[in-house]
Parts: sequence; C-alpha cells; structure tokens
Amino acid sequence: MFDNYFRRQAESLLQSAGIEVDGRNAWDISVHDDRLFQRMLSKGNLGFGEAYMDGWWDCDALDQLFFRILRSGANERLLTLGMIAARLSGSLFNLQNPSRAFTVGERHYDTGNDLFEAMLDPGMNYSCAYWEECDTLHKAQEHKLLLVFEKLMLKPGMSVLDIGCGWGGAARFAAERYGVEVTGITVSREQSKHARSLCRGLPVTIELMDYRDLGRKYDRIYSIGMFEHVGYKNYRRYFRKARQSLVPDGLFLLHTIGGNRSSSSTDPWISRYVFPNSMIPSASQIAAAHEDLLVLEDWHVFSDDYYLTLKAWHENLLKKRKTLEGNYSDRFFRMWEYYLLSCAGAFRARHLHLWQLLFSLGGLTGRFRVPR
Amino acid sequence: MFDNYFRRQAESLLQSAGIEVDGRNAWDISVHDDRLFQRMLSKGNLGFGEAYMDGWWDCDALDQLFFRILRSGANERLLTLGMIAARLSGSLFNLQNPSRAFTVGERHYDTGNDLFEAMLDPGMNYSCAYWEECDTLHKAQEHKLLLVFEKLMLKPGMSVLDIGCGWGGAARFAAERYGVEVTGITVSREQSKHARSLCRGLPVTIELMDYRDLGRKYDRIYSIGMFEHVGYKNYRRYFRKARQSLVPDGLFLLHTIGGNRSSSSTDPWISRYVFPNSMIPSASQIAAAHEDLLVLEDWHVFSDDYYLTLKAWHENLLKKRKTLEGNYSDRFFRMWEYYLLSCAGAFRARHLHLWQLLFSLGGLTGRFRVPR
Repeated sequence: MFDNYFRRQAESLLQSAGIEVDGRNAWDISVHDDRLFQRMLSKGNLGFGEAYMDGWWDCDALDQLFFRILRSGANERLLTLGMIAARLSGSLFNLQNPSRAFTVGERHYDTGNDLFEAMLDPGMNYSCAYWEECDTLHKAQEHKLLLVFEKLMLKPGMSVLDIGCGWGGAARFAAERYGVEVTGITVSREQSKHARSLCRGLPVTIELMDYRDLGRKYDRIYSIGMFEHVGYKNYRRYFRKARQSLVPDGLFLLHTIGGNRSSSSTDPWISRYVFPNSMIPSASQIAAAHEDLLVLEDWHVFSDDYYLTLKAWHENLLKKRKTLEGNYSDRFFRMWEYYLLSCAGAFRARHLHLWQLLFSLGGLTGRFRVPR
Repeated sequence: MFDNYFRRQAESLLQSAGIEVDGRNAWDISVHDDRLFQRMLSKGNLGFGEAYMDGWWDCDALDQLFFRILRSGANERLLTLGMIAARLSGSLFNLQNPSRAFTVGERHYDTGNDLFEAMLDPGMNYSCAYWEECDTLHKAQEHKLLLVFEKLMLKPGMSVLDIGCGWGGAARFAAERYGVEVTGITVSREQSKHARSLCRGLPVTIELMDYRDLGRKYDRIYSIGMFEHVGYKNYRRYFRKARQSLVPDGLFLLHTIGGNRSSSSTDPWISRYVFPNSMIPSASQIAAAHEDLLVLEDWHVFSDDYYLTLKAWHENLLKKRKTLEGNYSDRFFRMWEYYLLSCAGAFRARHLHLWQLLFSLGGLTGRFRVPR
C-alpha cells in the first residue's frame, strides 16, 4: 500500500515535468525496481542518483530528463530533509578549510588519469569550452583558452599565476603561445605530476599548494574551474589573496560555474560521489566578496557551452569505454554518466551558469574592450 | 594663523594627488579666495563645489583635476562630517519613496529644455553613449541605442517598456527602427510633454508615472539612466516590478552608473545641486537585489565612454553658451560645469562605472550571444 503511495507521488511529480514512467520519449524513465519511488522521495537527488547507480532505473537521455525536471521546477518540490541537513552542515563548519582542501584533490582529480584522458580533449582541459564557431571539443577548448588570454591581454615576459592549474593544459598554452612565465598551483598530486611533465621545457612552475599560501605578485592571474571548491566562507579570503597577488595594473580572470541562489551547501549526490565539499557561488556572493578589493571589468555568461562540453565528454567516454572497463566497475560508469548528464541538463536548463569575470585592481583607465 | 593651518592641510592633500595650488598644469587650481581651504576641509566636495560656484577658485581642466584626486585616493582622506551625516540620513529615511519620486523630475529634468537641447545630441539622450567606432556624440548615442536594442533582440510587434524614458529619444528610435510598440514612463512633466511630441505618429505611449504603479506585462524592458534615482531601499522592489512586468521569455536591459562601494547615500554636492536623492548602486547591491527574481545574462562595463560623453556635453555647452546666457546665471554655468567635469573625471578614474546588465526571467535556453 505504501509502495503505491510513493509511486503515485513520484509519478505525479515527474508528470509535472512532462516525464512518464515507462513512457516512450527519450527523457522518460524505465523503472526496474519499484523501491526507486520511495528512495527518490525521501532522499531527493541523492536517492535518485544512487538508485541509478544501482541499476534500478534507466533513461535514454539523462540530460533531457534533468533539463525537464529543472525547467519545470519539480526539483524545488523535492527538497528533502537530507538537503536541509547538508545546508546546515555547510553553515556550521568551514568544509573547505586548508586541511580539507586536499580532499577534493585526492577524491576526484586523482580518480585516474586514464579516465580523464579518455574523456577530455588532448589539452586535458577539465572545464567549460567555448564553442563559438567551433565544432570539435579540441577546437572549442583552444578557443576558451584564447578567450581567457585575450581578455587578460597577455604580453611576452609577463608573470602569470594559474590558481587550480589542473593537468597544466592552460599553463602550457599560455607559455607556448604568449611567451609568458606561468606558476600553476593545484591540490592534486596526480595533476601536479602530469602538469610538470606536460610543461617540461617551458617557463612553467607547478606547485602542489593551497591558494592561501601564495606569497608573491603577478602581472596576471587566472583561475579556471577552481572557485567551485573554495566555499562561501572563504570567498572573501580568496579575493583578498587575488588582490594581494596582483601588481597595481594587473588583471584577474575568474572562470567559474554559477548558480541562481546563494547557498551554503551543494547537492548531496554531487558532494558524495563527485566533488566533496564543492559549492556553486551565486552572483551576489561573488559581488559581495570582491567589493572594495577588485574592480569588475566584465561578466560574461555562456552556460549552454557547458552543456555542449559535458555532452562531448560523455560521447568520448562512450567511444573509449571498452578500453577502460578493466579499471572501473559498471556502477562507476553509471555514476559518472549520471554526473556528466545531470550537469549537462542543469546547464541547458540555466539552473547552472558558466561565468567568466574579469577584474582589475583599481579599474583600467582609457579605452578598453573585453573580447568575446 | 588658522588660515595658514587650513591652507597647509589642503595643499598637502592636493599635493598627494599631484595637484599644485597656483601651479602651471592644466589640472592645478588657481585660488582667488583663501577661505577655500577651510571650506573644502570642513565640507568636502560640498564645500569645494560651492566655492567653485562662488568663483573662489578656477581650474583649466576640472576633469583632469578630479581624475587625479580620485585615482590618488585623496578623496578618501577628505571624508567629512557632512558626508557621514548624509550616509546616516540615507539609512534612516527612504529618500526615494513614491511621494518624493517626482522631486527629481521637478528639480533636475525640468531645469529647462533649452539647456539640454544645447548640450545633448539631437535625439536628446541624457545618458552614456557608446563610442566604439564613433567619432561624434550623435553617432555614439545611436550606437548605444543599437547596442541596447540588439542585446534585447527586438522584433517587430513586440511590446516594450521604457522605465525612465527621458525626452523619448530611445522610445522613438525603437519604434522607428524595430517596429515595436513602446510604453515610456517618466516622472518629469517637461520630459513627458517633449517625449509625446517627439514620438507623435509612432506606436509610443508616454505616461507620467512612477515605476511602482506599472501593471501589465511586456516582451522587453529597458531602463537607461534611471536606476540611479531608485535608492537602495527600493532595489528589490524595482527588480520585483521588472520581473512582474516581463513575459516568461522576456528580457530586461538595465543601463546604470555603478560604484565600487555599497552606500546608502550620495555625494552631498551632487545631491544638493544636481540630482536630489540620487544613489549610485554597487555590484553587490544589484546582485543581491535581483537574486531569485531574474537571471543574469550579461554584465557589460564601459566606463570610459561616459568620460567621452560628458566631455562632449561640456563642449556643446561651451559652443552654445552665448545663446543661453539670458536664461541662466554665471553661478549656474559654473555649477553645471563642475557637475559635468567632476563626473567626467570620476568615470575616467574608474571611481564610477557604466554598467549594462542584461537579465532574463528564467534563463534563456540554447545558443545565445550578447552583442557588443
């Protein structure tokens, strides 16, 4: 009897987003285990995602499923106790204090370079590409780097800081194409090793270091896809550190995912399986955190490009799955697919955004256009 | 003895900004009355500006003078009791409540159309122009309007709301060039009369109305240079009204001056002589006020264009001063010159910014590039 109750509730919620249980559209879900309904109602996305990993349900187009859920607002009606508890713990503890900073490095970015090599472009850019006039991931990632470095007006000989340098693709690109000296910092040991090897022979230094330990000044700073790990309690500190690390006429480009609503926690499924202690900043959190420290020069929004990027990563993974199967379980693959495609749907639905913000120390004087 | 003390203090403050009393650079000041020093030290910009109006001092390039004061931070060291009192009164009273909303209309915009006709471009655009690839004010104002309407993706037949329509130049341009229906609202009787006459024969309705009394929905909204009169206590209300006035796939373009620091008051000289009860928003005030109401699509910064615009207005005024002299006193001209050129310097120094923000109701889906 209760099973029926949960099924009816869940079906009605899904129907409000145009999704049928065992329907024929690509975004409909096929249910293999009826315990799904209770699990999703009681645990929200955590239960929905874990049930997917356990094979309790399937969907031909997970990204379209999530697009529909988020555009319809059905997710708002599924706010569970688990989510409220996560929000609470975010406001009681500093989940991103320095001793925890290395957790995300170990948990996510050390997953295995083979997986990321299969999924990403040759430059190993693990962040949103810029698809303007590009039809391949490789070109779109290069375009993104060109966009970042043109906005920063890099000139030969400049000293450049890369906060959260990943596998070093951006640092290498900057050093090779613009003749600048780059210091890249990361909290992932695997990434730092890879980055050092990728940038061999170039004026690039890679440090295994938390941003709070930075000490000198640079002509330019960029930070691509790292701010999501900073945590709202540290935003002010992060911007203060950016200010302290810039010369007076310096520029800082922040490339980050953004959300519509100020929050002190993250989605519990994403936090448990993908990015521990991550947090999506809101516009007002970023605006408040940089006030009186840096001057806003530009705020560029290109969210749909992340949808295309995540879809490309997913396609790459599908193509190379056979070669990876020895190293990863089927449950892992389902988890990873759920991660990529639920995020793809969230960007397409504009539940998530991609923001590139350009800052200067005291305001650039004279004529100055930010390229697009 | 005290006179000497004030003079030394003031000279040292000005010297910290590279300004000499009775020096030979264009930005230096010639002092005709030594009481200036006490007046500026005790009353800040209010005293400095009033002393200029009274002819106590002169400067060949007021804009360069203010550029130097603001870039050096000398203004920060001149925070007087008068300014603190103004901040306090801003936080105790809602200086922009509806009954006061019409004050600014009567005080500033009804100054006299002959003055504005002499100063502005033929389209009577009293806001920052966009000088990209333009060498005259007229072209740059048209470019600004094209920029606004291209960002809004106007299509024939759309209903468009202009919050703070001024003399109707933008409404006319939109109706003529894009075939849209425009409702323009203003709180200035002089402006509403002029706007009605300017837009005769076009599908443009001009209403003498406060934005809080708006009732219906529009496909597009723009608001050019009006947000500066809204006041921080009403920002949330303003964005809620914008949301309520938009269709689900609508767009809203906000063109406003911005400041580096959240404040609840304005400069006392500007408030007394130019814009009573005006207030410059900060990025964090705007970001907090639109959260959960509208989705940010773009934040464009082009502050130096306002420097060029104000300089062009000043040049126009100089050219036509003879024809206006019967209607305005010399003190009025000095006041107006101080207003135009101190603001020009503030924009050039990036103490003030020009922001164009584009918002949608729930996030635009699909590929979408904001033109520049």
